[in-house]
Order: sequence, then C-alpha cells, then structure tokens
Amino acid sequence: MAPSRAVTVALDGHGAEQGFDVLAEGARLAAAGGVGVRVFGPERALDLGGAEGIEVIDTAESIGNDEDPVLAVRARKEASVVRAAADVAAGNSAALISCGSTGAAMAAATFGLRRLQGVQRPALAVQLPVPGKPVLFLDVGANVEVRAQHLVQFAFLGAAFSAAVLEVEGPSVGLLTVGEESGKGREEVVEAHRLLGKAPGIRFAGSVEGRDLPAASVDVVVTDGFTGNVALKLLEGTAKAVAAAVGDAARSNPIAAVGGLLLKPALDGLRRELHPDTTGGAILLGLRGIAVVGHGSSGAEGIANAIRLAARCAEVDAVGRTAALLAEGGAGRGALAGDGA
Amino acid sequence: MAPSRAVTVALDGHGAEQGFDVLAEGARLAAAGGVGVRVFGPERALDLGGAEGIEVIDTAESIGNDEDPVLAVRARKEASVVRAAADVAAGNSAALISCGSTGAAMAAATFGLRRLQGVQRPALAVQLPVPGKPVLFLDVGANVEVRAQHLVQFAFLGAAFSAAVLEVEGPSVGLLTVGEESGKGREEVVEAHRLLGKAPGIRFAGSVEGRDLPAASVDVVVTDGFTGNVALKLLEGTAKAVAAAVGDAARSNPIAAVGGLLLKPALDGLRRELHPDTTGGAILLGLRGIAVVGHGSSGAEGIANAIRLAARCAEVDAVGRTAALLAEGGAGRGALAGDGA
Repeated sequence: MAPSRAVTVALDGHGAEQGFDVLAEGARLAAAGGVGVRVFGPERALDLGGAEGIEVIDTAESIGNDEDPVLAVRARKEASVVRAAADVAAGNSAALISCGSTGAAMAAATFGLRRLQGVQRPALAVQLPVPGKPVLFLDVGANVEVRAQHLVQFAFLGAAFSAAVLEVEGPSVGLLTVGEESGKGREEVVEAHRLLGKAPGIRFAGSVEGRDLPAASVDVVVTDGFTGNVALKLLEGTAKAVAAAVGDAARSNPIAAVGGLLLKPALDGLRRELHPDTTGGAILLGLRGIAVVGHGSSGAEGIANAIRLAARCAEVDAVGRTAALLAEGGAGRGALAGDGA
Repeated sequence: MAPSRAVTVALDGHGAEQGFDVLAEGARLAAAGGVGVRVFGPERALDLGGAEGIEVIDTAESIGNDEDPVLAVRARKEASVVRAAADVAAGNSAALISCGSTGAAMAAATFGLRRLQGVQRPALAVQLPVPGKPVLFLDVGANVEVRAQHLVQFAFLGAAFSAAVLEVEGPSVGLLTVGEESGKGREEVVEAHRLLGKAPGIRFAGSVEGRDLPAASVDVVVTDGFTGNVALKLLEGTAKAVAAAVGDAARSNPIAAVGGLLLKPALDGLRRELHPDTTGGAILLGLRGIAVVGHGSSGAEGIANAIRLAARCAEVDAVGRTAALLAEGGAGRGALAGDGA
C-alpha cells in the first residue's frame, strides 16, 4: 500500500544480517509510528504486502560487504541501495536508510544526494551509546585520513546537526587527542586545534582524551575516521564485554545469582542505554539529503530506530538547517571554504 | 638502608598524583615482596628512613607534566627521572620506574638506556585491563605518527615481550584496523598488513577491529601511538563509566540495592580486573634496559605493581631475550633493519 504519511523514507531492503524477516519487522514498527516507508528489496522475501504505510519496490539486486563500494555503486544502478538513494534524489522519499554495506551506503548517498556547498568531506556521525547525556561523535569511518581543515569542517557539521536535530543550544565541540605521552599529538590535530581556537561561530571546548569520551562534558567530539571507527567499536565492545562480565559475576555463586536477579530490572535499562541499536545508527553529514547507516547486526527495534532517526532528521529539515547554520555569518562559510586543504 | 635483593630497581620519587605518602607506600609494598628499591626523591617528604630493602637518594628536582619532556630531560641532569635512568645505565639498578610525566620518562629512558640494535622506534606497551586473557597492546603513545615499517617492528617487539615475559608460547599478533566502512584503511596499515603477512618468524593473525579489542583472541595487538593512546584511555574510561552506571543502577531502588549488595563480592573481582592499576603500567619496548611507566594516578598498590612488573622483566632478562628473539633468524632482523622507512 502506498504510504501517505507526513514523512516517507527510502529503506534499503537488503543487507540486514538478521535477515529479511527482521528488516520487515523493523519497517513495520516504524510505519506503525507514522513513518511512510518505501522498501527497495525482494518483495517475496520481505512479505510486507498490505502492511499499512509501507510500499515495497521489488528489487532483487544488492551490494555486498565484499565488493568495492565505489565501483559497485557506480556500476550497478539496479542495486537496492542505489535505487533507494535515487528515490530520495527524485524527491519521492525524504531520507535514505541502509543497514547493508556501510561503504556502499556512503557511496550511494554521496553520489546520489551530493555534497552541501563548501563541504569537502562528508563525515559519519553517531550518538555515542554511553550512560547519561548523548555525545555526537564524528567521523566514525568516512575518512580514514584527514587534514586539519577537514577536522574543522567536521566540527561545524557536528555542531550544526547537534543544534538542528538534537536541539542542543550552542553545542560545545571537543577535539579528540592524546595526553602528554605523545607531546603535541598528530600534526593535523594540533593544526585543527589552532584553527578551531580562533574560529568564530563555534563553541570550541578544546581537547578531549579517550578516557573522557564515555562521559564527555561536550556535546560534539571530532576526530578522523580511523580513530573514530576504532573508538566507536571499542566503546561498544567494551560495554558489551563489561556487561557480559557482570553477568558472569552474577552466575559465579548462588548468592551473587540472587543479587543479579534483584538487580536485573535496573541493569536492563542500562543495557538498553548502552546498546548500539538504541541510537539508530550513523548519519552521513554534509550532504544535500539525509542518509542513515544502521548497524548491519541490528534487530527489528534497531532498524526501526534507524528509520525513526532518518524521519526525524527530515521532519526538522536537518539538511536545510545545517546548510543555513553553516552559511550563517562568514565563520562557518570561511572554515568550510577553507584554504583548499 | 641499602637494598641487597635479587633485583634492585630505580624508582622516580616524584610525580605520583596521590602524593609522596602513596608513592612511599607503593615502594614499601614492593620491597616487602623482595624487590630492592632505590628511590630518587625528596628524602624528607618520602619518609622512608629505615624501610627494609629501600634506599632513598635525596633528589629535589623533578620534571612536570607541563614541560617539554625532551628539552627538560636533556637540560636537567639532576631531575629525579633522569637520575633514576642514569642509575639503570650505570648498572646500579636493573629497571627504571616512573609514575610522573610519561613523556619525560620515555625521553629519560630512551636517552639513558638507548635503543636495541635495529630498533627505530621504541613503543609503549600495556597489558589491557580487560576481563579474561590479558592482551599486550602497543603502541599506546610513544609514536603518534608511524610508517608501515614501524608497525612491523612493534609486532616483533610485542611478540618478543609476550614470549619472554608473559610466557606466551608462539604469541599471535593482530593489527588494529577499521571495518569495511573505510575501504582499505590507512595506507601504512594496509602496507603493514601486507608486510606482516609474509614476515617469517611472526604468527600474524590479521586484522583486529575496535570491537574485538576487549576480548581479543590474539596475544598482541599493534597500532600507532595516537590510535593506541585514544583506545587505551577509552577502554579504561568506558569500563569505569559502565561500572559506575552499574553502581547507579544498584542505587536506583531498594530491591536493586539488595541485589547490588549480594552481587558486590563477585563484582569487586571484576572491578579489580578492569582497574588500570592491576597491570602495573606501560613498558617501553625496544630499549637496552627496562623502563616501566606507571599511571600518574596510581594508588600504592598500582605503584607496587609497576615496581613488580619492572622487577619481573629484569628477573627474566626481558631485554636480553627480546634482543635474542629479534635477532633469531633473518626474519626479525630483516623486518627490524627494514628499508630505512
């Protein structure tokens, strides 16, 4: 059935590691909440016929994790993620969501939706799954090597998104770096620190160390895509390992087991807070359209959250407001235009 | 009283954030276990007169965290960490331990103890404070920028230390990198992967992602000092934040509180396992002498553990065995001599 909702999004119907059933269930959950979903995937396997607010555009082809994403996206116009991105570009949908190959999703979004004026490098941002206040963290994998100017751009992109979508007023931005062990850190980080320190239009809060990330006092933390990717996955892995170790501790003897049972409801809330699915995935910032990359391993709730995040970005006109914030005054524009670095 | 112990080490008597009392107590704990300790610090403040196995060499001067470590170490021969390193170089002590400025400790060790033949860049290694099997992780801050050849050296240094000191037979080595998000990762990492894949004399296990680090199936994980420093501190910070959140959960209601009490003894073991102090600090690998850098924030037990780690390295002749393992066959030598990269 064709969606007639306030916001309609385009969902890549391939790539969810838990299978088509789980992907379909995620779409159903999001549609039940009022989002229109156009799913580009195999009609039969998805079995979404008649689901309210959902339209399936039968799409057999997909891009796998083992393919070169840029080559595959360029060559295969019929692949689900490429068709979904084209759907957004054509104005049929307001946002792209994929839980398949992150590389392919980034390539499809970048080619299909194009970059905002002045943006050299789109960056992948996530809300860190940490206890308490969520921190927007970027880049988590779009750019493994960066120059100082790119880090400055990430700061502007992150601050704009934080203000526009997360409704943080005057978001503060930190730059991830190392302690005194390494003297002054990487060259591009030192330079970015200098540039951000004098950039008007940004609330630069200085350096953030790895140890501060899980409980950062800033709203946005900026780093390169290599460090960011390692850090995000490490954070997720550590939270999981510690939660598992708490579980082991609770099974270590009968008294601890009773304790674990009594503590369980309170810990379940924490576990939910720490679970990567809760935040709905990563957003590719710096484009003229909205693109959300969900976890490949997401369950139905995680997929639904990715769809909801994308819909929310569309509802608040994240792209338009980001562009406006970037253009506001000479500061953002100057930093983004950069020195050609 | 002059130590007459199997192993005598040189302890920087300045720089412990918790103060001279805690540093002195750490020295006492280690000395009680049979290690001879020569402490280079302020005799009056340390108040170690008459402590068995401990000798204080009155040293007023110290290098702070706010100084340029290389310049300070070069200029100030009377600074405690420089004197302690000189004590090792002179053969009076078998290892250097400092809980002060990591940069100063690294500079003092590198200048004072010199590099092993063929080693271009000493690297800082730690045993990760994770549940279960400890993983040796390097570089955690000595080299913020590296070339492929340096990463290969780190693999050999880590494997040699793992075999010699941690008694791991045929240790496996992983290379920290990112997932498919970033295509093929940083250039130097891709090249190091290629070099390690064909290096005889090393059990290369391929790539390790951030999420695998807390429960790595390999014995040694290698990365650059920027990523490694961020990752180590993030791991420590996340473990701490999650542990704190578990505590909050246990205080959230009376039933959970009872559960928390019953679970406490089991969780205390885990907390100890995750605490950075447990592993005793970082070891600077690739030198002709032993240098251990403890956490500045260490308590007495953490300082004692740093001293014990250093003493253990001396007892098993970590340096000699590392040098021998590196020289063994053409592989290690070839990789270490490198291509001048």
